[in-house]
Amino acid sequence: MPLHPDRCFDPDPAQRQIARQLYQAVAGLPLICPHGHVDPSLFTTPSASLGTPASLIVIPDHYIFRMLYSQGISLESLGIPTQDGTPTEADPRRIWQLFGDHFYLFRGTPTGMWLTYELETVFGVSEKLDSRSALRIYDQIAAQMAAPDFAPRALFERFNIEVLCTTDAATDTLESHQAIRASGWQGRILPTFRPDAVVNIDFPGWRANIDRLSEVSGITIHNYLSFVRALEQRRVFFKAMGASATDHAALTPYTGRLGHAETEAIFNRALHGEASTDDAILFTGHMLIEMARMSSEDGLVMQLHVGSLRNHNPQLGTRFGRDMGADIPIQTEFTRNLKPLLDEFGANPHLTLILFTLDETTYARELAPLAGHYPILRLGPPWWFHDSFNGMNRYFDQVMETAGLYNTVGFNDDTRAFPSIPARHDLWRRAACNWLARGVVMGLWEDSDAAEMATDCAYNLAKRAYRL
Amino acid sequence: MPLHPDRCFDPDPAQRQIARQLYQAVAGLPLICPHGHVDPSLFTTPSASLGTPASLIVIPDHYIFRMLYSQGISLESLGIPTQDGTPTEADPRRIWQLFGDHFYLFRGTPTGMWLTYELETVFGVSEKLDSRSALRIYDQIAAQMAAPDFAPRALFERFNIEVLCTTDAATDTLESHQAIRASGWQGRILPTFRPDAVVNIDFPGWRANIDRLSEVSGITIHNYLSFVRALEQRRVFFKAMGASATDHAALTPYTGRLGHAETEAIFNRALHGEASTDDAILFTGHMLIEMARMSSEDGLVMQLHVGSLRNHNPQLGTRFGRDMGADIPIQTEFTRNLKPLLDEFGANPHLTLILFTLDETTYARELAPLAGHYPILRLGPPWWFHDSFNGMNRYFDQVMETAGLYNTVGFNDDTRAFPSIPARHDLWRRAACNWLARGVVMGLWEDSDAAEMATDCAYNLAKRAYRL
Amino acid sequence: MPLHPDRCFDPDPAQRQIARQLYQAVAGLPLICPHGHVDPSLFTTPSASLGTPASLIVIPDHYIFRMLYSQGISLESLGIPTQDGTPTEADPRRIWQLFGDHFYLFRGTPTGMWLTYELETVFGVSEKLDSRSALRIYDQIAAQMAAPDFAPRALFERFNIEVLCTTDAATDTLESHQAIRASGWQGRILPTFRPDAVVNIDFPGWRANIDRLSEVSGITIHNYLSFVRALEQRRVFFKAMGASATDHAALTPYTGRLGHAETEAIFNRALHGEASTDDAILFTGHMLIEMARMSSEDGLVMQLHVGSLRNHNPQLGTRFGRDMGADIPIQTEFTRNLKPLLDEFGANPHLTLILFTLDETTYARELAPLAGHYPILRLGPPWWFHDSFNGMNRYFDQVMETAGLYNTVGFNDDTRAFPSIPARHDLWRRAACNWLARGVVMGLWEDSDAAEMATDCAYNLAKRAYRL
Repeated sequence: MPLHPDRCFDPDPAQRQIARQLYQAVAGLPLICPHGHVDPSLFTTPSASLGTPASLIVIPDHYIFRMLYSQGISLESLGIPTQDGTPTEADPRRIWQLFGDHFYLFRGTPTGMWLTYELETVFGVSEKLDSRSALRIYDQIAAQMAAPDFAPRALFERFNIEVLCTTDAATDTLESHQAIRASGWQGRILPTFRPDAVVNIDFPGWRANIDRLSEVSGITIHNYLSFVRALEQRRVFFKAMGASATDHAALTPYTGRLGHAETEAIFNRALHGEASTDDAILFTGHMLIEMARMSSEDGLVMQLHVGSLRNHNPQLGTRFGRDMGADIPIQTEFTRNLKPLLDEFGANPHLTLILFTLDETTYARELAPLAGHYPILRLGPPWWFHDSFNGMNRYFDQVMETAGLYNTVGFNDDTRAFPSIPARHDLWRRAACNWLARGVVMGLWEDSDAAEMATDCAYNLAKRAYRL
Repeated sequence: MPLHPDRCFDPDPAQRQIARQLYQAVAGLPLICPHGHVDPSLFTTPSASLGTPASLIVIPDHYIFRMLYSQGISLESLGIPTQDGTPTEADPRRIWQLFGDHFYLFRGTPTGMWLTYELETVFGVSEKLDSRSALRIYDQIAAQMAAPDFAPRALFERFNIEVLCTTDAATDTLESHQAIRASGWQGRILPTFRPDAVVNIDFPGWRANIDRLSEVSGITIHNYLSFVRALEQRRVFFKAMGASATDHAALTPYTGRLGHAETEAIFNRALHGEASTDDAILFTGHMLIEMARMSSEDGLVMQLHVGSLRNHNPQLGTRFGRDMGADIPIQTEFTRNLKPLLDEFGANPHLTLILFTLDETTYARELAPLAGHYPILRLGPPWWFHDSFNGMNRYFDQVMETAGLYNTVGFNDDTRAFPSIPARHDLWRRAACNWLARGVVMGLWEDSDAAEMATDCAYNLAKRAYRL
Repeated sequence: MPLHPDRCFDPDPAQRQIARQLYQAVAGLPLICPHGHVDPSLFTTPSASLGTPASLIVIPDHYIFRMLYSQGISLESLGIPTQDGTPTEADPRRIWQLFGDHFYLFRGTPTGMWLTYELETVFGVSEKLDSRSALRIYDQIAAQMAAPDFAPRALFERFNIEVLCTTDAATDTLESHQAIRASGWQGRILPTFRPDAVVNIDFPGWRANIDRLSEVSGITIHNYLSFVRALEQRRVFFKAMGASATDHAALTPYTGRLGHAETEAIFNRALHGEASTDDAILFTGHMLIEMARMSSEDGLVMQLHVGSLRNHNPQLGTRFGRDMGADIPIQTEFTRNLKPLLDEFGANPHLTLILFTLDETTYARELAPLAGHYPILRLGPPWWFHDSFNGMNRYFDQVMETAGLYNTVGFNDDTRAFPSIPARHDLWRRAACNWLARGVVMGLWEDSDAAEMATDCAYNLAKRAYRL
């Protein structure tokens, strides 16, 4: 079935008419992608390939295989590679058939909507994916992917992406980014400094990561001070490579300054593999303030993603590793946790701190009041499970009246799935225009304001907040 | 006033038209009632009577008398029996008049909607209940209830109930169920194994319940192992009597394995009346995992209802006993609490665990992500206070995008009030069809998908999940 | 742009038509203002002035300047007075221009909607406020404010306010209230007893407040018992001055009875400046029960506002003082915290306790079930950040089905900004009528019921609950 031209627009004809007008004015704006997880190596050469339909769409997407797994389909049968190299399904056509057999599971999910859009607008497939059509659709996609205009660079240009930010470990030497620059290709792909693996002392493999950080920074890390210097060195490098932002993940937004002696002691214990769970919490809380301090000095916009209990399913973790769709949100508290950071930097004129939550109860209760007060704070768009049509509506409903639109930052697609990027922005733009249209027809704002707000949602807010 | 034929359908004509079509296709499907509290003794003989309008509708329904009590009407004046036998109002006509005087309090409540439906479609009363009409309506209902086609069995058939599951203590000998079977009547009424009163060692009367469990199981319970054997014996019995599920209530979903020595020690303290509050929490958390283990072996579907602080009003508890409308929800945490159980059984192919919550903040944050990942998990419908039109809409809005429809289980009426069953299913079916119609008109799914999803919501999901 | 005549009404024509009818029937009802922060001294003489547009609208309104501050505009440049007397911007025209330059920040916020209404209906300004129009609008407002029919008393009458309750410290001698009464003016302005500054022993300046309480009560406070006597004396005085209610703020709704010795010991420590943080928590929890006891005796309706972490921004607090838009909500728990108070007074026939929350997750989970059971409890309207169109819709959606309309108390404008009062009531009345219209067109209640419910929402519920 072809895509519904008015999808996501309210049934009411008056609202729909205004939504359509607002949308038509922003649908063609370039895409600003300030936060995501696309692999930059896709863009190092013009001839890079996206692989097979299975390896492009199913195998790397934990949104897809978590749902199949939840209905009893093994990850092995979907070709997810194991940690120990035990072979799993290798035939992409069988994987795709299994996916097609169960695509009905995605009815009403954002994954279903994104994929339907991607199949139709990227690959020209308007047939419905099911058991019977699966292999026919496979062949159609595979044929397209072989063509040069489906190389990542060609798609980047076709997608009208103005800037795409990746997410990169603090120890990353950004070779793909260097190669892109060296190639002369004009696509703007920027790194983002993500230091969790060296900043969170309970991160798996932390000790080895520190050695790696010493190596790439050229600063031998033997204590906390040298650790901070190494981080600062990497930030200089990332900034030189075009980075405009950092990104930080933590279980909670706890922040708190440690005294110098205590910081050194914890770091020393960590170096010797003797740090406790409490040490890790205290250290992360301290480092978030330090990262705010560094951002206030070097101008890198700071992002904070909190509230996900990672790798909830230990059997899956052992067999398949991290990021296997088994990260589950927890309750989150911002008002008290962020206070120490805000006490120091809440009104700093050089700092921007963008907050992301998986706990929607914090939208109206904590985040909107905080962002509607502190100059450094901005609210990121609905994240992860909430990056969906209903999730966006809850965000508009619960955030905007108190925070105001101008304390938000537009959209992040936050995806690993490069060809799904247009689908995700399209959903956001439609949802925003529909929300704005409702305000017009209900007299909450003027239509001229709505037109400006639509452009802000689709383009300006992200570009400004991320200093792109 | 007669029932509005399009009640619960959105005002938008396009959506309403589709909702009506979807509804008409499912309105006549048989009712699957996999969880509820109807008294099976109603069905042991063809001539059982429903009593008076007051004893049928007002006195047993804590949804009704809690609201009247909240406005200063005493439970005594409503004929609620006291624990110590102090007499309360005995005249059903006076009780009914008092109810009619205050029926305006139920405007916009699900109780009000259910009762309006029940009065019109079961008893043929389309007059509005108020002070003036109360006794006239009383007489009309009473006259009908005296007729043979208002006997419970006749209503069961008229209601088109395909299967009705009751909720029964682990110590119950299921005599009513046996009598129903022995009678040759074909109505399918099945027991459900609810062992809280013997599993939660802080349950009032626990020690006596254990004696009773010894007696009915034929296994003398002198330690933890014999306790487990007795439970297993009861499960065999319940299964032989047709049970397809168990049900477990706890204040929180805390789970955690205890070692054998610790389990025995706690159980022994409990037998001697020396168990602490912590013992009770630990033991319940251990037994939930044990119950999952048993279900993974015998195939009984496991239900878990958590988050209600029971008997919040001690004065009412002392005078009238349990279940007097004074159970108040608390915040609930699933992500960490369920982890130990899921670590062991999260992907067990024989187990289904259906979760119910009174804390709607867990829908999008915890439950939908969990159910959208773990193979054993399914989400029960909106429960108790949230079994309402708005409650259902919040559930559809917050659960479906992440969990997917196929990790939910359709509807439970969960009622003691037998004649309200059709009203409750009708509200669910209308709410589901209205939600599905919105998706069609907004292009979120196709109309052919919506038709299937409507049948799934109304019938298939419950039947499949409960293995009926 | 002139105000949209159908603002806040749903786009659907059928719903809008009914909403309009319901609204027209209640739009002219007198305003009941049972809780707010208007300065009573405005009304002591007929010739009182409202000052300049800046001092009337911008400088005292933390809703406005928090948003400007959040976008980097200093409070100094807005003329907010400092604690130490450092001069700040003194030219009201420059302040107003800055406000106009940034008025776009308030798009979609309740502040924006209130101000637009106020400008048009109070001051006759229908031009949109922006950089270019700012000074023109300033002059227009200033000219009007100089006229006698813009004196506060004249506006009070024009606004059709039936009763306006202020909020007054327990130590207040209510001289403005006395002057209003002595003046012979018939406007009904009543005090409300707010004892936080003497009841919460961690309140800044508590010791001095106690001395003041001794002074005004004529009872030397040297221990807990004399403290209680002094409070009772003040309540008698407030009641004699027309008060119908008390108001209590606390960080959490924790309640708990202390024994007499413990109460005396804590109070004694507080008198000597030796009370701990725990002492303060315990004492507040005890005093809430004592306040309930006093209200059950003197009939003053008790209000409880909880969940705001006050003065979150210490830099702002030091420079500008309290109530500077830096109060941030926290998670709140009612079910367990209120139990001790409810155990004693939950069914007391003389007491009404009205609860307010900033944590909307408690609406459906805790507050509606509590208010739908306990006779003393009523739910206040959406408070502070949630006093907005969407906030009201969430309240109607999440509260009414379980609590029932008749366990709620209509509207509070809760404002310091006197000329914004009609705007706030208008928004509530529109939101309520739109919600009620939806119920009519969806068959959830009858149109005759909706008409009564609209009047109840707009007028009766507040008047009854506050015993006005």
